[in-house]
Amino acid sequence: MAKKRVLVVNGPNLNLVGTREPDIYGARTLDDAEGLLRAYARDHEIDIDFFQSNLEGEIINFIQKNADAAGIVINPAALTHTSIAIRDAIAAVKVPSVEVHLSNIHAREEFRRVSYIAPVCIGQISGFGINSYVLGLEALAGYLNDKEK
Amino acid sequence: MAKKRVLVVNGPNLNLVGTREPDIYGARTLDDAEGLLRAYARDHEIDIDFFQSNLEGEIINFIQKNADAAGIVINPAALTHTSIAIRDAIAAVKVPSVEVHLSNIHAREEFRRVSYIAPVCIGQISGFGINSYVLGLEALAGYLNDKEK
Amino acid sequence: MAKKRVLVVNGPNLNLVGTREPDIYGARTLDDAEGLLRAYARDHEIDIDFFQSNLEGEIINFIQKNADAAGIVINPAALTHTSIAIRDAIAAVKVPSVEVHLSNIHAREEFRRVSYIAPVCIGQISGFGINSYVLGLEALAGYLNDKEK
Amino acid sequence: MAKKRVLVVNGPNLNLVGTREPDIYGARTLDDAEGLLRAYARDHEIDIDFFQSNLEGEIINFIQKNADAAGIVINPAALTHTSIAIRDAIAAVKVPSVEVHLSNIHAREEFRRVSYIAPVCIGQISGFGINSYVLGLEALAGYLNDKEK
Amino acid sequence: MAKKRVLVVNGPNLNLVGTREPDIYGARTLDDAEGLLRAYARDHEIDIDFFQSNLEGEIINFIQKNADAAGIVINPAALTHTSIAIRDAIAAVKVPSVEVHLSNIHAREEFRRVSYIAPVCIGQISGFGINSYVLGLEALAGYLNDKEK
Amino acid sequence: MAKKRVLVVNGPNLNLVGTREPDIYGARTLDDAEGLLRAYARDHEIDIDFFQSNLEGEIINFIQKNADAAGIVINPAALTHTSIAIRDAIAAVKVPSVEVHLSNIHAREEFRRVSYIAPVCIGQISGFGINSYVLGLEALAGYLNDKEK
Amino acid sequence: MAKKRVLVVNGPNLNLVGTREPDIYGARTLDDAEGLLRAYARDHEIDIDFFQSNLEGEIINFIQKNADAAGIVINPAALTHTSIAIRDAIAAVKVPSVEVHLSNIHAREEFRRVSYIAPVCIGQISGFGINSYVLGLEALAGYLNDKEK
Amino acid sequence: MAKKRVLVVNGPNLNLVGTREPDIYGARTLDDAEGLLRAYARDHEIDIDFFQSNLEGEIINFIQKNADAAGIVINPAALTHTSIAIRDAIAAVKVPSVEVHLSNIHAREEFRRVSYIAPVCIGQISGFGINSYVLGLEALAGYLNDKEK
Amino acid sequence: MAKKRVLVVNGPNLNLVGTREPDIYGARTLDDAEGLLRAYARDHEIDIDFFQSNLEGEIINFIQKNADAAGIVINPAALTHTSIAIRDAIAAVKVPSVEVHLSNIHAREEFRRVSYIAPVCIGQISGFGINSYVLGLEALAGYLNDKEK
Amino acid sequence: MAKKRVLVVNGPNLNLVGTREPDIYGARTLDDAEGLLRAYARDHEIDIDFFQSNLEGEIINFIQKNADAAGIVINPAALTHTSIAIRDAIAAVKVPSVEVHLSNIHAREEFRRVSYIAPVCIGQISGFGINSYVLGLEALAGYLNDKEK
Amino acid sequence: MAKKRVLVVNGPNLNLVGTREPDIYGARTLDDAEGLLRAYARDHEIDIDFFQSNLEGEIINFIQKNADAAGIVINPAALTHTSIAIRDAIAAVKVPSVEVHLSNIHAREEFRRVSYIAPVCIGQISGFGINSYVLGLEALAGYLNDKEK
Amino acid sequence: MAKKRVLVVNGPNLNLVGTREPDIYGARTLDDAEGLLRAYARDHEIDIDFFQSNLEGEIINFIQKNADAAGIVINPAALTHTSIAIRDAIAAVKVPSVEVHLSNIHAREEFRRVSYIAPVCIGQISGFGINSYVLGLEALAGYLNDKEK
Repeated sequence: MAKKRVLVVNGPNLNLVGTREPDIYGARTLDDAEGLLRAYARDHEIDIDFFQSNLEGEIINFIQKNADAAGIVINPAALTHTSIAIRDAIAAVKVPSVEVHLSNIHAREEFRRVSYIAPVCIGQISGFGINSYVLGLEALAGYLNDKEK
Repeated sequence: MAKKRVLVVNGPNLNLVGTREPDIYGARTLDDAEGLLRAYARDHEIDIDFFQSNLEGEIINFIQKNADAAGIVINPAALTHTSIAIRDAIAAVKVPSVEVHLSNIHAREEFRRVSYIAPVCIGQISGFGINSYVLGLEALAGYLNDKEK
Repeated sequence: MAKKRVLVVNGPNLNLVGTREPDIYGARTLDDAEGLLRAYARDHEIDIDFFQSNLEGEIINFIQKNADAAGIVINPAALTHTSIAIRDAIAAVKVPSVEVHLSNIHAREEFRRVSYIAPVCIGQISGFGINSYVLGLEALAGYLNDKEK
Repeated sequence: MAKKRVLVVNGPNLNLVGTREPDIYGARTLDDAEGLLRAYARDHEIDIDFFQSNLEGEIINFIQKNADAAGIVINPAALTHTSIAIRDAIAAVKVPSVEVHLSNIHAREEFRRVSYIAPVCIGQISGFGINSYVLGLEALAGYLNDKEK
Repeated sequence: MAKKRVLVVNGPNLNLVGTREPDIYGARTLDDAEGLLRAYARDHEIDIDFFQSNLEGEIINFIQKNADAAGIVINPAALTHTSIAIRDAIAAVKVPSVEVHLSNIHAREEFRRVSYIAPVCIGQISGFGINSYVLGLEALAGYLNDKEK
Repeated sequence: MAKKRVLVVNGPNLNLVGTREPDIYGARTLDDAEGLLRAYARDHEIDIDFFQSNLEGEIINFIQKNADAAGIVINPAALTHTSIAIRDAIAAVKVPSVEVHLSNIHAREEFRRVSYIAPVCIGQISGFGINSYVLGLEALAGYLNDKEK
Repeated sequence: MAKKRVLVVNGPNLNLVGTREPDIYGARTLDDAEGLLRAYARDHEIDIDFFQSNLEGEIINFIQKNADAAGIVINPAALTHTSIAIRDAIAAVKVPSVEVHLSNIHAREEFRRVSYIAPVCIGQISGFGINSYVLGLEALAGYLNDKEK
Repeated sequence: MAKKRVLVVNGPNLNLVGTREPDIYGARTLDDAEGLLRAYARDHEIDIDFFQSNLEGEIINFIQKNADAAGIVINPAALTHTSIAIRDAIAAVKVPSVEVHLSNIHAREEFRRVSYIAPVCIGQISGFGINSYVLGLEALAGYLNDKEK
Repeated sequence: MAKKRVLVVNGPNLNLVGTREPDIYGARTLDDAEGLLRAYARDHEIDIDFFQSNLEGEIINFIQKNADAAGIVINPAALTHTSIAIRDAIAAVKVPSVEVHLSNIHAREEFRRVSYIAPVCIGQISGFGINSYVLGLEALAGYLNDKEK
Repeated sequence: MAKKRVLVVNGPNLNLVGTREPDIYGARTLDDAEGLLRAYARDHEIDIDFFQSNLEGEIINFIQKNADAAGIVINPAALTHTSIAIRDAIAAVKVPSVEVHLSNIHAREEFRRVSYIAPVCIGQISGFGINSYVLGLEALAGYLNDKEK
Repeated sequence: MAKKRVLVVNGPNLNLVGTREPDIYGARTLDDAEGLLRAYARDHEIDIDFFQSNLEGEIINFIQKNADAAGIVINPAALTHTSIAIRDAIAAVKVPSVEVHLSNIHAREEFRRVSYIAPVCIGQISGFGINSYVLGLEALAGYLNDKEK
Repeated sequence: MAKKRVLVVNGPNLNLVGTREPDIYGARTLDDAEGLLRAYARDHEIDIDFFQSNLEGEIINFIQKNADAAGIVINPAALTHTSIAIRDAIAAVKVPSVEVHLSNIHAREEFRRVSYIAPVCIGQISGFGINSYVLGLEALAGYLNDKEK
């Protein structure tokens, strides 16, 4: 079985994670998250393509250019609640995607509880700090394995 | 380190899972979910207390009687969207809880997108079939380990 | 042709019907309704399973245990407007169901005009006192006969 | 006991029923419905006055001109959700009325779930194809008989 | 000074006024209203064109055909709350118009408090039984006299 | 027949009418309105008690102190849309009241279309400049005469 | 004068009061509340029937079985905002009822400010810890005494 | 290839276009529109059936009677926002339809931005004066040609 | 222990209580309420400062001038639902306050169910006629005693 | 160039500023604000008319009596969100006005984010403690200077 | 007459059109659209400037840099429903614009029915696949020709 | 005291200010604003970092890269109402910020009255043309000086 390539896509301000507002997002950095993901990937025949941008359009470009990936783990951050364009990109490339969040968005401001992205994903994982990423990758791997059978 | 006791709480109709509406909830049964959970628990020093009820009040009774548990994985099913009483029970016993869902509730009817329970949980996992349970247990274990440090 | 078994399910407070608030619900009792239904059933090769409970969960239990019934006539009473769990139970067992109401819910308070149950039923009959039950059973019988053809 | 005259009033596009969109409205025509109604009427000392129009105002005219009828069975079709004028006509003539629908309006688009007409009727029957008409006539007859006692 | 021609336009069901629901609309008939209006008109150099229809489109036709009238007193009845088409007709012919109502629409059901017609009229008079008509004609006459100066 | 005493109550900023914003409220002053009203009153056995205040509470005081008046013509101005207290004062003294407005409030900002006062009045007259006052007094007189019969 | 029997009904999670979340609900237990109530009752010819359940349906059963009680003091807790069925039970048995709350529900989350139960009660008392119960019983006693006169 | 028959249906007040409110609807008349359409039709093997009515029901009648047409260009005018009945007529006859508007309805009052008709049409063209008709016919012709291939 | 000074503040129209609308507010007057309160105060080392005004601003003045009071019992009447300024006054002086209402505001018009004042009070008592005042004073006294401990 | 007279208008409870709730409104008093304003005014050829009232109507009176002022700096406090009457007063006198707030109203409760006054002002300044006043006066002066050119 | 330069602006994901989700957007590519447009342009003295970007800001840059163009045909795709910034750009440069859509946005999800862009355009064309572009260009050309006269 | 570095951040289309739509935004350019700001800065020991971009993400990048600045004056323009990402950037870097607007956004379209950015700023200044920038810088300087004390 060939290795599966999985995109890990990060929205605006996630590059600051771990250095700021640790009470909301936890004290570990995006590098820590990447480290955990690469460790998990190594053990499960997965190749990780890690990406962060503060520009909605660059995220769309990245998704379009990697439309042949096996899956996507995406933390759209603030764009979760405003970007129909990223939703359309995921719907267009039809790559199985999992939405993840560091904080529990369902326990925050009203406007953070609705996601434009989640309806075109397999599912959503929210609230477990950088562990959300690993759970998301694991959930994606499980989904892909089920489909292969 | 002593074993941690974790409640796995299932709301109404989940006893039918796997036998009915497989297009929404998948083809595996609640027994399958329990099996996966017990396997995971065995490897991670966790004791599972598995419970299902169609009665909101019995779920509350169960949570109250086990207020000394280390954590809760709860799939409130239809009660997710209507039960303030279960929310209050979890808030009262202050046991760290994770909300899980078989289907991606964010991609279903409007009234299934809002959860009364999630705001008092650590986080929410939604959309990965019975794998959501394992991910939820894992997320809970990660959270408890982080707190112990 | 074998007899068809039909569940008649009654939600909270319907056991008081006929003895209280006759201006809203009419002066005849639930026993009267049961009598009319049994009379109709006797003439139409139907077996009636009559059930009332004030507990949402017991209603779900009853529906699940009788998932092999040919049809359901259900008056969910106050639960009409709050119970997603009963909706899910009916959707799960896939037994053809008819929702009935003693009073015309469309002419009462705003919150009584919306039904969580109706969208998973064949149809809804509302406003004809205990006659709503007989009309509901008749409507169900008509539906089942059409399907058999 | 003298024969009772009952109006059966049909709103816009119902003349096409049975010939178009059978997946929503069933395969039987308005003539079939009329036939069933006349059969039922013959057996129950009822005279049927059958009427269809695509014009809201003609329906109002018809109701006004027949204000001495014993009852009305009305399927206002699309006008259910937009016509306060038909509501006012029924309220003005004070003829006991039953609202009927071929399809289950409570399981369709949001805008089809609210009825301006139902609050001035005895009740509403929805979802049983042309059988809704017969159930409506029967419900009306039951109501009129009860009042006579 | 030439006589002014004024249209008095009546919407659906107003032909029943005085004979039905006197608790809401009063006991006097539309003929009584016409009588009062003609008496007032005779004394004020006004010609009355009195019109009633249950059909929205006929009201529009009537307004269009009389686009050279000096003014309109209109009681749109139930169409007040639903007819953008009558609004557009009045806006198109640019004849100064006064909206009148027998009952106090601001003290009735929520849906009767909003008028599509009033924003294109000089003003609205509501609640004084058939006297609303005379007040409306008088208000219109005052407006026209002011403009002539 | 004894003279009837009628209160004419004016809300905030109406003392500026005629001197400011003539495009909205017309060019005639509140004194002009009072003059017209007194002329009408003289001819119809009515005594006018004319009052203006910019303070909601003073208006309530005035209404309470004159609870034996035969009727009220009230232009609550901006308080129309915010004062439940004036509504309660009118409801409490049970003096028949007519709400009047200089401008057509139904053609202005959204928040000016709803009145807390109108539901406890006989009716509302809106849009005819200071003529609205005379029409309001006339409407009130007509109402009182009808009641006397 | 015979002793009056008064039901004191407690909704879900109230059995935990005083032991958990003292910042919201105060530090005294439900037993303390019962003690205070029994003391008050002893002095005022009242018999207390004290009841707590986490099941909506059991509360309804309890109310129905005690439909001959003189009055009810009810703290529906979380069910305040979701249970139309308890509302209907109280409306059906027509026992004068007072709704009480430990915390000031009007100062908490939006969804806790609306009560389905209050509209069928004499009144509501909210915010005074377990003293709310005594005030509620006292209010009920006052109401019953007034009615007796 | 046989000529295609296309209905051009015009709603209320469109007969006044070009003569009134030219700032909103432009200075050209409905006759001008018909002229342009006939010119275009002549060049493209299309037969035009041109129809205008102020009555919703007559428009429905016209559509029903011409259910064998190849396509419809419809400007429902004010009925765009209120007529579920015309929507149902188009859905029933299943004739491919294009909705057109003279003015840009998306830049006008809030209530003019929603169309009941558009969801059952191929598409909508709005804002280009009578040129909207020609564009609509062209769009329809393009659609029909594509389907033929 | 020194006597506690308690303000009893009454909003607009409460001076009319007992003389008007007894079906809503009861037959006893504000003087009766004051009498009951003074009797209770005499027995509980409380000094009452009784105040009524129809002017929102005078109520604010009164509260500000008595910012050293031990507590406030306030019936804001109609201002309950409209006055953010009284809310701010209570929040600013930080005097513990109890909101009381004669009628059950939760069973009246929609706009009477929301209170701007309650969120800055200890609690709310609603529905027990003038007894609401005594219960309010008692609740306040209980609260103050608890704090002293 | 003659001195410009500027009104500084303060709404309810602002007389308490600096002495209460310093966490929201800052620790400086209204006198401090007046001092700063007078200092600024002295340097810029401005005369300050400083006014505070807890009564909406007195504020309106003050504005009307000073309709010849060159400008207004107004902090309507709680009346910002409820007073259409003050809005109408400013619109009527047409004196250029600037709305100021001590706290950042856009970061507080939902109901504090909407202003009835701002739409008739030049602009709004919010969140800078008593410095908001100076900024407001400066903004007003800048506006008046621009107009003079 | 000089050639007119027209911008054709395409929003996010339109570069994928024709290759993905053909059931929604049709099977033809953006290159096909460009081909059709260039053919049309060649015949009508128009120069086409074709542009696509997934970045909202680049679209704004492009519009600003070409503010001297004669017209714009814009398909903002997902940004239609979220970008006030593109709306402001079009409003600022005042270049006559036409909004086009491949799919019928009025027949899709609720959030796709509202356009921030359309109110600052001449009109909107929606639902005709890549033919929408040609119709849009034609509509724009017609508008420009009319203005030249 | 060292010089303070202040970022002045400008959102989309502000580069066009002064050249377009002067009726809304005034006739002075962004360069004029920069000039005024630099003049003010020179006199107050402030260093200005002036930035404009039409891309939301570039604005976020700029804020992140300058997270050591002393303060931010930001005019987010159209992004005010749509960008949660810029809000999150400001909240993350925790640099004290002031939101400014050229036009009075509270007097424009409904959708321009709500700001996602303002709740994480010190305050908001809106409506004074380019003077809003200077006032904003001044407000920021005042805030920073207060904090230093």
